[in-house]
Amino acid sequence: MEQLQNDLFLRACKRLPVERTPIWIMRQAGRYLPEYRAVRAKADFLTMCKTPELAAEVTIQPVDIIGVDAAIIFSDILVIPEAMGMSLQMHEGRGPVFDTPVRTEEQAGKLKKIDPYDDLKYVLDAISLTKKELNGRVPLIGFSGAPWTLLTYMVEGQGSKTFSNVKKLIYNNPELAHKLLDKLTDAVADYLSAQIEAGANAVQIFDTWAGILSPRDYLIFALKYVNQLIDKIKRNDEPIIYFPKGVHYRMRTTADCGADVIGIDWTIDMAKARDKIGSKVAIQGNLDPTVLYAEPGFIRREAKKVLESYGEGSGHIFNLGHGILPDVDPSHAKALVDFVKEKSGKYHTNKQKV
Amino acid sequence: MEQLQNDLFLRACKRLPVERTPIWIMRQAGRYLPEYRAVRAKADFLTMCKTPELAAEVTIQPVDIIGVDAAIIFSDILVIPEAMGMSLQMHEGRGPVFDTPVRTEEQAGKLKKIDPYDDLKYVLDAISLTKKELNGRVPLIGFSGAPWTLLTYMVEGQGSKTFSNVKKLIYNNPELAHKLLDKLTDAVADYLSAQIEAGANAVQIFDTWAGILSPRDYLIFALKYVNQLIDKIKRNDEPIIYFPKGVHYRMRTTADCGADVIGIDWTIDMAKARDKIGSKVAIQGNLDPTVLYAEPGFIRREAKKVLESYGEGSGHIFNLGHGILPDVDPSHAKALVDFVKEKSGKYHTNKQKV
Repeated sequence: MEQLQNDLFLRACKRLPVERTPIWIMRQAGRYLPEYRAVRAKADFLTMCKTPELAAEVTIQPVDIIGVDAAIIFSDILVIPEAMGMSLQMHEGRGPVFDTPVRTEEQAGKLKKIDPYDDLKYVLDAISLTKKELNGRVPLIGFSGAPWTLLTYMVEGQGSKTFSNVKKLIYNNPELAHKLLDKLTDAVADYLSAQIEAGANAVQIFDTWAGILSPRDYLIFALKYVNQLIDKIKRNDEPIIYFPKGVHYRMRTTADCGADVIGIDWTIDMAKARDKIGSKVAIQGNLDPTVLYAEPGFIRREAKKVLESYGEGSGHIFNLGHGILPDVDPSHAKALVDFVKEKSGKYHTNKQKV
Repeated sequence: MEQLQNDLFLRACKRLPVERTPIWIMRQAGRYLPEYRAVRAKADFLTMCKTPELAAEVTIQPVDIIGVDAAIIFSDILVIPEAMGMSLQMHEGRGPVFDTPVRTEEQAGKLKKIDPYDDLKYVLDAISLTKKELNGRVPLIGFSGAPWTLLTYMVEGQGSKTFSNVKKLIYNNPELAHKLLDKLTDAVADYLSAQIEAGANAVQIFDTWAGILSPRDYLIFALKYVNQLIDKIKRNDEPIIYFPKGVHYRMRTTADCGADVIGIDWTIDMAKARDKIGSKVAIQGNLDPTVLYAEPGFIRREAKKVLESYGEGSGHIFNLGHGILPDVDPSHAKALVDFVKEKSGKYHTNKQKV
């Protein structure tokens, strides 16, 4: 295995001893950074995703600028449906839109089986290039949307408050829903395996819309496929992070999904989460992203509460409870990272594995 | 006290014995009903709110058409900020918008103290008229937004995915936030007291945006004011329902807020909720509103699971976990109501108070 200068993140994922708590920030390669906006001014979002040099550049920016302990490849969860043949538009302010959502057997039948080495080669190239440019400074995280979350986007076609279309599908045509989820599970497994082969040191599965489901439907339509997905991913020792945003129920069952790390949002009590699942998995999170709007002194006090709430020992990866917001002051993000780096050592004085 | 022909809802709120589980549906006077749309075709939303005859007409429609066990006065939670002087626009599809959100001391200072008997007389008149027209068939529920949820709308000015503005306020100017919440608490208390005096048999406090807060912030900015609010409401024996949507934490503390009933959404396990708080309060909920998209057989199976999950005895008010969606088939809503009325008797064979 390659020699990393900073492997705190990977060790914490495995609940191995660390000298301090590692930190990275979801959507850290993003619009809040002027350096990102400078790149974005020259190319649209999808062009950035599909141009390895640009993707690598913005992926590395937060490592240089705010000093996070891991990079995450710049990309989007919707590249899979696009590779399956769905036409994707990125609208500034409105978010991504699929012109023709998938809601019928016929539309589902037209989705092609993807080969990540061909259809998503640009992501793999971006990973290889980023790895080379990172030169072992910090690990690189790959990622994908979870099958349920991808299905939600594909069926809704765009953001939704009620998720009426995907709910209609699962209640009125569960067979088709399961068929699509099976297909997506295979696609995501191949895609994440290829990312690991290309050099990703860990992968995160984003289940952004898991929390719109009732506890039982979550098991049937979301978690079941995450279990299968994780079984299918080809990896050596690379950690897998599962982030079912909004899911506050069935936490013990979730912790058995095969992931090394479970991500939690800011509505979940970190101490309780550790108490419930901390003996099985590491936990990532969970500062409210909007806390970064406050002045640095307030941010530090809130960050301290998160550290205290997790408590002594390894198995905590500091992060926000959701992506960093585009209008956050970068110096606030840096204040958070600096604080965690400077002050989290005291939670790791006993170097035993927890 | 007046003689009601059907007081199942009121008895269940007090956890007194009932012959069967009562049911009503949040937003039951709404766009899914063709009879509602016929009224709406003649008057815009705010005109309907402000015309007692129209408000009474649509309030009573679901009692006649789908047979619910309680009516809820047709109105909107944003009538309070409007009465305080904020200019409110209702945009079809986009939801309500305040042209000038409240974000500064100066803007807050301009909000006027409301007198519900003057500024919101139209709601009180609508309640009196509806009571007269209902003629004791079922109880009438009054309602208001909770202080936190009203503050959120007033600061954001419109719907939001991130709630950045209200979060900026509570983190960067908590004094102003608390000042506004104090003012809103007084206004809501006066308003709900007046609704009860006008004839409301119960009142519901909608805290639609409580769930965007971390558990600690929820106590500080939402629940604290609900406690104060409930203390201030002048009532005889009229039950109070508190519905903090999305709140899955601090349930025991929530159950101590003084409300007779706590509403829960569909992501919360009903059996666990009863186990935690069922000895203190009645519980209202919690079928996923999108289940009404499914065919009636499926709806009945899911409704049965909710009844089973609550189990034997009084203290359950059947409802959805959020408002009924505008594109639901009214016959599906009726199938739900019929099922609960026909099949819930077996959970109430022992007439002892639970």
